[in-house]
Amino acid sequence: MAVQRSKNNNKWSNAEAQKQQVANGIESPHDITALNFSQNYVKVSNEKVKNKKNREGNVPKVKIIPLGGLNEIGKNLTVYEYENDIVVVDCGLKFPDSDMPGVDMVIPDFTYLEKNAGKIRALVVTHGHEDHIGAIPYLLKRISVPIYATRLTVALIEGKLKEHGLLGSTQIHTIQDGETIKAGCMRVEFIHVNHSIPDAVAMAIFTPAGIIVHTGDFKIDYTPIESKMINLGRLAQLGEKGVLALLADSTNAERPGATMTERKVGQSFRSLFRDAEGRRIIIATFASNIHRIQQIIDCAQEFGRKVAVSGRSMESAVQIAKELGYLKAEDGLIITLDDMNHYRSEEIVLITTGSQGEPMAALSRMATGDHRKVGISKDDFIIISATPIPGNEKHVTRVVNDLLKLGAEVIYESMYEVHVSGHACQDELRVVHSLVKPKYFIPIHGEYKHLRAHAKVAASLGMPEENIYIGEIGDVIEVSQREMKVSGTVDAGRVLVDGLGVGDVGSIVLRDRRHLAQDGLIIVVVTIESVSGMIISGPDIVSRGFVYVREAEELMDESRAIVKTVLENCLASSKTDWSTIKLRVRDELSAYIFKQTRRAPMILPIIMEI
Amino acid sequence: MAVQRSKNNNKWSNAEAQKQQVANGIESPHDITALNFSQNYVKVSNEKVKNKKNREGNVPKVKIIPLGGLNEIGKNLTVYEYENDIVVVDCGLKFPDSDMPGVDMVIPDFTYLEKNAGKIRALVVTHGHEDHIGAIPYLLKRISVPIYATRLTVALIEGKLKEHGLLGSTQIHTIQDGETIKAGCMRVEFIHVNHSIPDAVAMAIFTPAGIIVHTGDFKIDYTPIESKMINLGRLAQLGEKGVLALLADSTNAERPGATMTERKVGQSFRSLFRDAEGRRIIIATFASNIHRIQQIIDCAQEFGRKVAVSGRSMESAVQIAKELGYLKAEDGLIITLDDMNHYRSEEIVLITTGSQGEPMAALSRMATGDHRKVGISKDDFIIISATPIPGNEKHVTRVVNDLLKLGAEVIYESMYEVHVSGHACQDELRVVHSLVKPKYFIPIHGEYKHLRAHAKVAASLGMPEENIYIGEIGDVIEVSQREMKVSGTVDAGRVLVDGLGVGDVGSIVLRDRRHLAQDGLIIVVVTIESVSGMIISGPDIVSRGFVYVREAEELMDESRAIVKTVLENCLASSKTDWSTIKLRVRDELSAYIFKQTRRAPMILPIIMEI
Repeated sequence: MAVQRSKNNNKWSNAEAQKQQVANGIESPHDITALNFSQNYVKVSNEKVKNKKNREGNVPKVKIIPLGGLNEIGKNLTVYEYENDIVVVDCGLKFPDSDMPGVDMVIPDFTYLEKNAGKIRALVVTHGHEDHIGAIPYLLKRISVPIYATRLTVALIEGKLKEHGLLGSTQIHTIQDGETIKAGCMRVEFIHVNHSIPDAVAMAIFTPAGIIVHTGDFKIDYTPIESKMINLGRLAQLGEKGVLALLADSTNAERPGATMTERKVGQSFRSLFRDAEGRRIIIATFASNIHRIQQIIDCAQEFGRKVAVSGRSMESAVQIAKELGYLKAEDGLIITLDDMNHYRSEEIVLITTGSQGEPMAALSRMATGDHRKVGISKDDFIIISATPIPGNEKHVTRVVNDLLKLGAEVIYESMYEVHVSGHACQDELRVVHSLVKPKYFIPIHGEYKHLRAHAKVAASLGMPEENIYIGEIGDVIEVSQREMKVSGTVDAGRVLVDGLGVGDVGSIVLRDRRHLAQDGLIIVVVTIESVSGMIISGPDIVSRGFVYVREAEELMDESRAIVKTVLENCLASSKTDWSTIKLRVRDELSAYIFKQTRRAPMILPIIMEI
Repeated sequence: MAVQRSKNNNKWSNAEAQKQQVANGIESPHDITALNFSQNYVKVSNEKVKNKKNREGNVPKVKIIPLGGLNEIGKNLTVYEYENDIVVVDCGLKFPDSDMPGVDMVIPDFTYLEKNAGKIRALVVTHGHEDHIGAIPYLLKRISVPIYATRLTVALIEGKLKEHGLLGSTQIHTIQDGETIKAGCMRVEFIHVNHSIPDAVAMAIFTPAGIIVHTGDFKIDYTPIESKMINLGRLAQLGEKGVLALLADSTNAERPGATMTERKVGQSFRSLFRDAEGRRIIIATFASNIHRIQQIIDCAQEFGRKVAVSGRSMESAVQIAKELGYLKAEDGLIITLDDMNHYRSEEIVLITTGSQGEPMAALSRMATGDHRKVGISKDDFIIISATPIPGNEKHVTRVVNDLLKLGAEVIYESMYEVHVSGHACQDELRVVHSLVKPKYFIPIHGEYKHLRAHAKVAASLGMPEENIYIGEIGDVIEVSQREMKVSGTVDAGRVLVDGLGVGDVGSIVLRDRRHLAQDGLIIVVVTIESVSGMIISGPDIVSRGFVYVREAEELMDESRAIVKTVLENCLASSKTDWSTIKLRVRDELSAYIFKQTRRAPMILPIIMEI
């Protein structure tokens, strides 16, 4: 199949006209336009519901099956199923925990989707972050699914498909917010939301059982950097029509109040640009945070500085965003890293990756003096415009320490308001719940504590507790106007990706890796003449990650002697069942080693027979 | 040597009388008493300095040699050396980073102390936290040093010595704050400070070159739970006399303002005890935070609840603190875990370990249902009275999620003010700097960013930058009334403790452990007849932590074939230099494996010769 970049295929309506009318700023008239525009649509959808009900004579039910994103941060994937039709929302990855050494990423278990591949009408994608798009190539290697997403999201997905050689074989459709696609008996409307990446949308899924609102990641920014704020008007209108279920972002549900506007960061930047006078400014942030990058570019323009970009993902993000018109910069403002040399320090802003202290990212390389083109000195004023994601704190601290040691001034963490979250806090969640007024609520995108905090927010607004469900991945949640219940479970879990291997690192391999990391290993090799049962070579002992052998010769000699005795005893008593012998060797050696060192290395006896 | 618990040995003065006069509360008269008491002392010390100067005709210099605690959190150890006398302050451990798998703890490199064992007059200890006392047994296994510490600190050190069988061979002296010990030509005065453990002291070290104030960990608590606040009066008096150098705690130097009083936590507890009505209360905190435990006991008494204790370190801390009178509880208030069954939920407060989410601690075991005596249900109201130490966030989150899933209500992190730090923030540091008015300043206890932040605080108070030195461990910092300079370096670094092994896990072993964790290993074994150069057994391939072998048979078969070809080629061309052959096997197999899997497992070729 060729790539389809058609603008109208499969679409139920087109919001092009509306989009053109949208003006910048807070009180833009587009919400009203959207309301007018979509009313027809909802009507049709509701008629459909009635038809369905009449034909079958019972209350129509939609199945909601989360395959990722509940009780975890990441690998978001939710299935909406109505009879023979499935819509999949998002297909993300999760970064591995520290107890998964060597694992590159974690993706959802696709078993259920593979089994029901024939039913899948669409994969709709809310935005272009890895935890929402990162597993798409792995799904597409299993089954073919048409993808629908907004323009920037499409560009980011296409980048991935290209890497995996999947671009030519995938149907991918660009949808604008306000537009609706058809997916079997369901329809999906894309609704603009604010988030830390442009072009993020919530989905309204019109099913014969009712309307479901799936927010994806979102926040409410009344003064966003992008042209439009979240389409609250449309959410309100859906609320008025009657929403069966809401599935909403719980990431910040523990936090009271509201997330600050992205503009706040711009204000901090302006004041820091003044403080940085005479020095080069280096700002590390997330490559996908195009609004943040736009604010840096705006400040650079204001303060008469040129902008250079460092780090592969940052370069590619800036290029894509510029090409698609998401980033606006005067001609000549953005220069290459090499061109930096033609300018004085105070004429430069360098935007870089590495805000999470990732050891291979550009900022880390600058900090350790390993960056080929950027050296750090007291002429540098460095801003880390991000908050460390849990687990990354120590990495970030290491980078900060190293940069400070090189003489730079470093602004980090909570020292200034140089970062705001992309997720709604409790007050914003209240706004959305109050507008959407769903009958049922399922918190998504979060660990259990986040889901529970979000459930509390819903309950505090008067929703009956039995209408709130904190789910688990694999749950089949049946929702109708009459009830919400879990009717069963399907395969769901995590699949580990390590290099080219998908799923070949399982719990045994991980357990072995952790064991090896903890105490290393001891290999015992011996060659035995099988007829006579004589040891003809060895036993030899090889160890790795256990102890510095040159300083532990006695321990090694004694180990060898113990193994030899065990083997000779076994062989003498003609116990030549190899697995019994191996077990004996392992037990005796392990007991001796533990007594001597209080360590429990993995012990691998290998018997060669000739 | 027998243990010496004498109260007066080696002491220069006795503050017993003063201590008796101390009243509870903020405006206690003890500061003034302390001032009066100590003036004589300082006079004598200053005379000593003069004598010294006259006799040798040049400015006396003291060497300050930090062997731990700079550019790191933990393993605090500072050497003060004047000619033939050394005083060591603290001897702590550090918990391993995530890049040190299997390592139990990190201790300082003692080489310099071993070389100068004959000079060491005293190890003085500021307080009983692991990062200040944890490495003492390892030092004592190398050299014999008399130890001086306050009463609770002595009890905690003795616990450690007992475990290591060192109690009988160690001189350990109990000193009260306000008292001074003699250490060769130096004298060390113990000065009471506030911290998150009782009986913490700063040290004033009187050297012929001048007075040095070494704060240890501290905060200023104007309304402490213990009877006395930090002895600011004594610090002020030393400041008036003239302090040569200040070495002070930098842990919270990044934070503006002041640390809240421990009493704030008590207020939060009271309000939470009311919220918990009808339910069992479980509070997790640090075992050494006796003040926190006292506040829990006080609340329990007030609310008519009994107190039970869970977790080995908590049980032992409560027992020691009760015996020594640091914890006060009505008779019968503290009950055993078994006795809990005789009470209703609302009659119980359970104090437990596990506030950092440590997988083996009591709270974690409760969360996973593995605690033998405590099961969690919706009848439980759980307070985690601690902030996750960087690196522990994910562990704590896991425990919180599990407890919530069991139906309990959980209060954690910043939800309420259920924890305050034990370290001084910027405003408190300013107080101490302004009172002590040192000529030179060396920030200690912190990573580089903390040390630098503390240096900035000092500079902001008008200290010339050349009088501030941000050091590194191993620096020999010579300080005199004329100058402060680094005159050289000594051996300093980290020694890893793994089980019974001290220092036998070095960088090679760690590198192997990390490699094994990352991609696992492949062992290639073959037996070769050495004369003919014929393969008589194998090659066999064994792997661990690499791939689930049953699903990778093809890969394993192909690997075996490759190894066989390499071996045969080598043997045919009579290249029987084993190390060359091994290298060839490793290279070819590694290239194949990487091409197939994008992984780089450790490859260990083992050739058995007969």
